[in-house]
Amino acid sequence: MRAAVLRRGRMVVADVPEPVPGRGQVLVAVKACGICGSDLHFAHAGAEDLAIRRQMERALSAGGTADIDLDADVFMGHEFVAEVLEPGPDTECLPAGTVVTAFPGLRTPTGMAGILYSNTIHGGFGERMLLTARLLLAVPNGLPEAHAALTEPLAVGLHAANRAEIGANDGAIVLGAGPVGQAVIAALRMRRVAPIIAADLSETRRNLAVAMGAHEAVDPRIDPPFDAWDRHGREHPPVVFDAVGAPGVLNEAIRTAPRRTRLVIVGTCVGGDTITPYWALAKELDIRFSMAYNRTEFADSLRALGEGEVDVTPLITGQVDLDGVQDAFDLLASPQDHCKVLVTP
Amino acid sequence: MRAAVLRRGRMVVADVPEPVPGRGQVLVAVKACGICGSDLHFAHAGAEDLAIRRQMERALSAGGTADIDLDADVFMGHEFVAEVLEPGPDTECLPAGTVVTAFPGLRTPTGMAGILYSNTIHGGFGERMLLTARLLLAVPNGLPEAHAALTEPLAVGLHAANRAEIGANDGAIVLGAGPVGQAVIAALRMRRVAPIIAADLSETRRNLAVAMGAHEAVDPRIDPPFDAWDRHGREHPPVVFDAVGAPGVLNEAIRTAPRRTRLVIVGTCVGGDTITPYWALAKELDIRFSMAYNRTEFADSLRALGEGEVDVTPLITGQVDLDGVQDAFDLLASPQDHCKVLVTP
Repeated sequence: MRAAVLRRGRMVVADVPEPVPGRGQVLVAVKACGICGSDLHFAHAGAEDLAIRRQMERALSAGGTADIDLDADVFMGHEFVAEVLEPGPDTECLPAGTVVTAFPGLRTPTGMAGILYSNTIHGGFGERMLLTARLLLAVPNGLPEAHAALTEPLAVGLHAANRAEIGANDGAIVLGAGPVGQAVIAALRMRRVAPIIAADLSETRRNLAVAMGAHEAVDPRIDPPFDAWDRHGREHPPVVFDAVGAPGVLNEAIRTAPRRTRLVIVGTCVGGDTITPYWALAKELDIRFSMAYNRTEFADSLRALGEGEVDVTPLITGQVDLDGVQDAFDLLASPQDHCKVLVTP
Repeated sequence: MRAAVLRRGRMVVADVPEPVPGRGQVLVAVKACGICGSDLHFAHAGAEDLAIRRQMERALSAGGTADIDLDADVFMGHEFVAEVLEPGPDTECLPAGTVVTAFPGLRTPTGMAGILYSNTIHGGFGERMLLTARLLLAVPNGLPEAHAALTEPLAVGLHAANRAEIGANDGAIVLGAGPVGQAVIAALRMRRVAPIIAADLSETRRNLAVAMGAHEAVDPRIDPPFDAWDRHGREHPPVVFDAVGAPGVLNEAIRTAPRRTRLVIVGTCVGGDTITPYWALAKELDIRFSMAYNRTEFADSLRALGEGEVDVTPLITGQVDLDGVQDAFDLLASPQDHCKVLVTP
């Protein structure tokens, strides 16, 4: 079968072995799969990514990413929606033809493995892949497949809101209005957080943020987000989400945030970053790091999409087939005018 | 009257104006005042301290520290116990002769001012000073004056425990067993936290940590604190208190901490510090910065000392008069064998 695989830093279409479902697994036909910023980063700097993971002595969550051979082809694609084809032996699952999505973990004889980057486990950038039977979630009636493919990124936003312990009495600033920032904005809007102030350098992204539910979107070069916050005259500090993930952003937030601000870091900044702990100490800041989501949050995300609590239509700015994946990766490397691009194998 | 003042980086004994209590204020005679690490730092690098505060756009707590003239004499000393002499006009307070301590804030015609570093507000390193009448707390019967002088540093530990939201089902690692680390250990022991694992390079300090209630104290060069933690076989990660405040300590904790660890930063690291956000992100760490304490925590601290819940005897490793303050500052610059030194004017 055909799949777009990462080969020496570029996405190429290859003829790969047909996946065969084992016990507890299901073969599915991929309908659509979103391109994630982490895919772009891994394609661009996979070696750095693996090195920094190996430096951590303590185990991370399952996934075995650090064992990947970058000289061999790598499968990627974890924001998938697919149609059930057939289960493995002695395995019950939803009927063939059901359109599903699933928490991206594959049951294997040696335990759960992440569907993220792998030399052996197929991802969503191919015609077919394996999923875990017990993790399948049927896409609710009427939700377009393209929208269901946004379940995973929206779950990232829901998880960040949960990590923040944010409620309807809180307001928020969201730094960075790329796909992660937009997911955070959508999740905050679902929680009735107000005001939500988005900050991004790109006008396109600022407009998108407002479409997704931000009450205001500012260009931080002209209108610093904490100044925008001050105009709302709220007594409590905002909860601040850093969805930029570039060096220096955290320290600028630490410098300018009001006392007792809670910062939730949801953007991935790879490599070292310098902060000024004394500022954070003098203002007694909280910094919470938020990554991924749990199965409940994944299911909540699909439910919210199915019930129309969030409309992700504005986020889908492009669609390509397998042959267009590398072009889409190139385009998303300068993402000012794009948000989520879907691959439809 | 006589006071030890900071003059061009050194503590010298000077003849200073007699403080005169205004409305709401009380003149007291200082009985003892502890030397704090922040005093040492301000004496050594006051200009750097002021510069870094000025870089923060948003207001800190009251204190006006950034307005200090370092070319003029600076009063310090905020860990005081004193005897009431006389109140200002139209002011009610505890009777003359009462031994008291107080939250270090002075009511002035323009609002509350911190008793910390000042060109005009006397501190505890002098014969007499002013306190706020309504903030006086009588030292409970029988508590030695020297022990009451530890109310303030113990409050710092209680505040850190409160910021951590730590409970009796949690265990903790305390990095650094100087005065702040010891106060954290004492506060954790009061909260029945177990185990408490202290880490410090100095054997003297490790012994002191055990005397203050740590269940175990390790030399981190030989026995990494998370290895010590693992030996206890607990399911949940420890709450980690960084009471070292030196560059690199935070990032080493970020690198080696288990998933979902809560780090409470209570040591002051001045200047920049490099962290690896990706490690913190992949493990979803929480970093909470804790500074000072509130009035309730200050009162709780004195109550705990008065009721014998904490015995601070081991922490008091020296006592000097005003003429000995600079020698004590010199000694505490290499504090491996010292903890709290009290000034008795």
